[in-house]
Amino acid sequence: MHVGIIMGSDSDLSIMQAAADVLKEFGISYELTVVSAHRTPLRMVEYAQKAKERGLKVIIAGAGGAAHLPGMVASITSLPVIGVPIKSSNSIDGWDSVLSILQMPNGIPVATVALNAAKNAGILAATILGAFDENLGNKVATYKQNLEKEVLKKVDKLKEGGQPNGFDA
Amino acid sequence: MHVGIIMGSDSDLSIMQAAADVLKEFGISYELTVVSAHRTPLRMVEYAQKAKERGLKVIIAGAGGAAHLPGMVASITSLPVIGVPIKSSNSIDGWDSVLSILQMPNGIPVATVALNAAKNAGILAATILGAFDENLGNKVATYKQNLEKEVLKKVDKLKEGGQPNGFDA
Amino acid sequence: MHVGIIMGSDSDLSIMQAAADVLKEFGISYELTVVSAHRTPLRMVEYAQKAKERGLKVIIAGAGGAAHLPGMVASITSLPVIGVPIKSSNSIDGWDSVLSILQMPNGIPVATVALNAAKNAGILAATILGAFDENLGNKVATYKQNLEKEVLKKVDKLKEGGQPNGFDA
Amino acid sequence: MHVGIIMGSDSDLSIMQAAADVLKEFGISYELTVVSAHRTPLRMVEYAQKAKERGLKVIIAGAGGAAHLPGMVASITSLPVIGVPIKSSNSIDGWDSVLSILQMPNGIPVATVALNAAKNAGILAATILGAFDENLGNKVATYKQNLEKEVLKKVDKLKEGGQPNGFDA
Amino acid sequence: MHVGIIMGSDSDLSIMQAAADVLKEFGISYELTVVSAHRTPLRMVEYAQKAKERGLKVIIAGAGGAAHLPGMVASITSLPVIGVPIKSSNSIDGWDSVLSILQMPNGIPVATVALNAAKNAGILAATILGAFDENLGNKVATYKQNLEKEVLKKVDKLKEGGQPNGFDA
Amino acid sequence: MHVGIIMGSDSDLSIMQAAADVLKEFGISYELTVVSAHRTPLRMVEYAQKAKERGLKVIIAGAGGAAHLPGMVASITSLPVIGVPIKSSNSIDGWDSVLSILQMPNGIPVATVALNAAKNAGILAATILGAFDENLGNKVATYKQNLEKEVLKKVDKLKEGGQPNGFDA
Amino acid sequence: MHVGIIMGSDSDLSIMQAAADVLKEFGISYELTVVSAHRTPLRMVEYAQKAKERGLKVIIAGAGGAAHLPGMVASITSLPVIGVPIKSSNSIDGWDSVLSILQMPNGIPVATVALNAAKNAGILAATILGAFDENLGNKVATYKQNLEKEVLKKVDKLKEGGQPNGFDA
Amino acid sequence: MHVGIIMGSDSDLSIMQAAADVLKEFGISYELTVVSAHRTPLRMVEYAQKAKERGLKVIIAGAGGAAHLPGMVASITSLPVIGVPIKSSNSIDGWDSVLSILQMPNGIPVATVALNAAKNAGILAATILGAFDENLGNKVATYKQNLEKEVLKKVDKLKEGGQPNGFDA
Repeated sequence: MHVGIIMGSDSDLSIMQAAADVLKEFGISYELTVVSAHRTPLRMVEYAQKAKERGLKVIIAGAGGAAHLPGMVASITSLPVIGVPIKSSNSIDGWDSVLSILQMPNGIPVATVALNAAKNAGILAATILGAFDENLGNKVATYKQNLEKEVLKKVDKLKEGGQPNGFDA
Repeated sequence: MHVGIIMGSDSDLSIMQAAADVLKEFGISYELTVVSAHRTPLRMVEYAQKAKERGLKVIIAGAGGAAHLPGMVASITSLPVIGVPIKSSNSIDGWDSVLSILQMPNGIPVATVALNAAKNAGILAATILGAFDENLGNKVATYKQNLEKEVLKKVDKLKEGGQPNGFDA
Repeated sequence: MHVGIIMGSDSDLSIMQAAADVLKEFGISYELTVVSAHRTPLRMVEYAQKAKERGLKVIIAGAGGAAHLPGMVASITSLPVIGVPIKSSNSIDGWDSVLSILQMPNGIPVATVALNAAKNAGILAATILGAFDENLGNKVATYKQNLEKEVLKKVDKLKEGGQPNGFDA
Repeated sequence: MHVGIIMGSDSDLSIMQAAADVLKEFGISYELTVVSAHRTPLRMVEYAQKAKERGLKVIIAGAGGAAHLPGMVASITSLPVIGVPIKSSNSIDGWDSVLSILQMPNGIPVATVALNAAKNAGILAATILGAFDENLGNKVATYKQNLEKEVLKKVDKLKEGGQPNGFDA
Repeated sequence: MHVGIIMGSDSDLSIMQAAADVLKEFGISYELTVVSAHRTPLRMVEYAQKAKERGLKVIIAGAGGAAHLPGMVASITSLPVIGVPIKSSNSIDGWDSVLSILQMPNGIPVATVALNAAKNAGILAATILGAFDENLGNKVATYKQNLEKEVLKKVDKLKEGGQPNGFDA
Repeated sequence: MHVGIIMGSDSDLSIMQAAADVLKEFGISYELTVVSAHRTPLRMVEYAQKAKERGLKVIIAGAGGAAHLPGMVASITSLPVIGVPIKSSNSIDGWDSVLSILQMPNGIPVATVALNAAKNAGILAATILGAFDENLGNKVATYKQNLEKEVLKKVDKLKEGGQPNGFDA
Repeated sequence: MHVGIIMGSDSDLSIMQAAADVLKEFGISYELTVVSAHRTPLRMVEYAQKAKERGLKVIIAGAGGAAHLPGMVASITSLPVIGVPIKSSNSIDGWDSVLSILQMPNGIPVATVALNAAKNAGILAATILGAFDENLGNKVATYKQNLEKEVLKKVDKLKEGGQPNGFDA
Repeated sequence: MHVGIIMGSDSDLSIMQAAADVLKEFGISYELTVVSAHRTPLRMVEYAQKAKERGLKVIIAGAGGAAHLPGMVASITSLPVIGVPIKSSNSIDGWDSVLSILQMPNGIPVATVALNAAKNAGILAATILGAFDENLGNKVATYKQNLEKEVLKKVDKLKEGGQPNGFDA
């Protein structure tokens, strides 16, 4: 396993599955489980302590509200931790999880991505692994080129739909 | 010791000392030390695990930025935890610590007080202890009466300073 | 009665009932009624003045918008007051009730919980009472352990659902 | 006395004096004292209850943080209450007092002015009184005309200072 | 006519009608029309210039987004202007209209009420008029007493519904 | 073509079409296509580099979230760029796109319009072009007069609907 | 005169002078004066009404707090109006002026620039004029190239200061 | 060179130097220069395009205001990009740079750290590199242990300073 995906509650799975899906797309081995900072603090400590020796290279942690999971895991492991702020049901517009994950003190960074952006967390993990694995690095580069191709298809579609377009004439 | 005061960094002492001072004023025994969620996570776990057996009744925890200390301690102990959001130097106007402490998930409440309000954390602890100790409860009631007396002195001072006042005529 | 639950309007009952439910679960006696700071100010004063002599140990007060009830009750009683910010229909994203309850001046703390978190208010009351009642304290500890067990069940469920999991292997 | 000016603390006087000054300028009789919602709740109730019978027409109430004074006074009196949100020392950028005063529930309005805008509170009181007193109404109209004259003086000053100005040529 | 109700668009009528309704309830004569600061600036100027001579005592102005109507009318008339911030369809959570109406510069106050609180604007107008009209003043006082009675009915309803209640025993 | 309308994704078309529609109404030639700062950065560079030589006079760029398109295009072209902040699906209430577009550094302005206000972007482009084309300038003036007429129709409609109206009597 | 620079108060001159300075640098004729929406509403109306016939092509309007000047001018003139939100002394962190200027309703756009960004307002005006004046358009292009040159000088300075730099080797 | 540190302006150096310092402490080779998204867009494109072939593994990009540099570099390179939001002089409390960097669309993640947290960006880079380099990984682990030791020294210092402490007795 190269990437560990954890989340505070199984209700976060609908958001966090996107991280797993994109890793699968890149052919990166991963694991996915629930580790709650607040409901299973000792499980969290053990998960973070054993992550490196179990072979993980990157941890993706998603949490909502007062989202302590990413930062607490980062405080125990020396692996890079990617934090996904989740807009939970009683969230104050997502600000709570964003700030709880982003504003870590000196010494304990968390690589924070956008609100609910589990897919980007997976891509960021791929980017990190790809910087040290030529084959994977090429896949990431290809992935970005495909993003471009998809846009160009939409350019054509708009043109065909009758939108005036002097640039792609 | 009835109240444990902890904070994430000794730089928070200038704020948190006010909690100790007001407890001293009420004659409540307390202890005060540094427990960092992010720099000493295992110390934090141990502190929370042993708090009750060591005789503590209330824990006051202050932290800034992505302030995880109060919530994490609350996740381990079954004692009431009072959280003091501290406006640290690179805080985004204090919103980060307020939301990181306040917005706890169901099951793990933190009794949050105002930004930098360590004094109020101490008074809240006294109020909690005073609900179960008649002598202390009376002290708390007297404390509130004294707040009133101080206001009335200011009323007199403003009147003597020449401010028109038909109400206290 | 050990806990008094009050709210500014009966429209808040759908939120505040959760506090009553969790107290019932802990076997804690409570009362629940409407006390409006703005529509029944004198009832509020009387409620706060008599709370202690009537045997209450903790007051839980929920209110929305310019939420003055928790702070005003705290200004009159010497009991601990737990404030529940409610996101009312014309609320500005809940910020109004959160700040109206949280940002109390020195001398008059309110133990504020998360937006709409009436359940956590009930648990916080149980935690406070449990610090002075061994039997109840044990129930609170058991409650927290059950939170852990529920998470572990979800861990198993995810594993059985086919999510890769090297940690719980 | 036609206008009662009250504030939560004498530390608010440096802001609130501006209300008194502008009333004096308009020749409107006023009184000014400290009435704290949180430290002298019963004094506040009495102040609000007696305001009308004592001859007041308008109440100006200034407060900071969880600013309950204007709304609580408005809940008891049937006089118009003007609220001045004050940016107190531990305020979260003034949002707390603004929202605590502005977001009153249906039935109990507070006429809220800008942050720290005690001068405008005084002018608003003059406007209200002036709507029912021809002489004062004229003074208010003159006051507004003078604002215009002051701007026109500045227009001249800028022109004389060499700023190009084709409009006032 | 004693109260002029104006709004920036007829799409605001669903909010602003509440001001008219409550004035009708108090027996206060009013008028209601559309005056747009941005679409009919000269109509706005004329409305504000003639308001006093036409016998208006109070103007209620509602607007959304960059809500300039209340402040602009206040800049021209010497009557009291009550501003109702409306949460329009592309509003940034209502902050735009609240701040555009509330944060007026020195000299030109607007009596701002809560977001969408047209009913409170009507009550505030009644309060202002009632301060100078004994009969109306009594109606306002009665209105507030009725608010209390409604709460007490709800108290009874909750009790009858089985909620434990030691206070109203 | 005088106006180039670009957007980061074809999912923004439902918002951005309004810019095209209003330009068509004014008889202004335009083009519309997808140019993504993040998915087609080199296409964006080329679009901006060639815009002037292709005869464009104004560029309208719409984007959501971390909205870099308007500012990046403005950094390359010397044409005026109008930015439309779009509230995308995982936006934090629109604040992200508003601030990403508005807060440009010295040297590289973007003419920012309101959230989702593509129609206003089109009108702003017409205003800019109309300042240098008498015929178009007159159309813009007529457009504004028509806004007034529409309001006056609503005034009549409200009057006919029975709303009291002393001003338009 | 091609550009009219107006501001709500001469206290805004320290911010707004930067617009004049950059216009002078581009050799664009301008005028600068005080026009207050709230203190001189009729002067504002007249300024906006005559702007086009006096030969202005662009209006730059700066204002703080509840900043109505840019939007109100835009409601009267058919010229493009650039709005500069100014962070005034009692501003709520600048949000009030930003939102009051930016969030204009459909039909009446204001080209808003960053907080206090009067310099960018001047550059935006130059960009607009330059789109219709080849000579000026070239100056704007040169201006942007000079920004690049200044950065490259700083690149050299950092290198010479000993910062490792493999890119510019 | 393993890490490229870039920033939008040399005025950001006082913040960004901390990233270089901590990399030096870990013995990680780095380069540092100015690359402005808005003033040198083509330099930015080239920097991002060549980063991987030049041997960089991680890019740290700091920027303030409408901070486009980190996201734009991430759109071109397939290396991991760490973004440092900088609170620039006319920032709206830092929100602009935080949101401009964090809220990237799907496909193009930026690993965002706290406001002004260049030191944490350096540590995050070390963590990423350390996940693939045993020696460096150990250094990172040691660094975290040293954070703990520093806290324990402060614990002793507080105790020696006379603070009561039953936990470390």
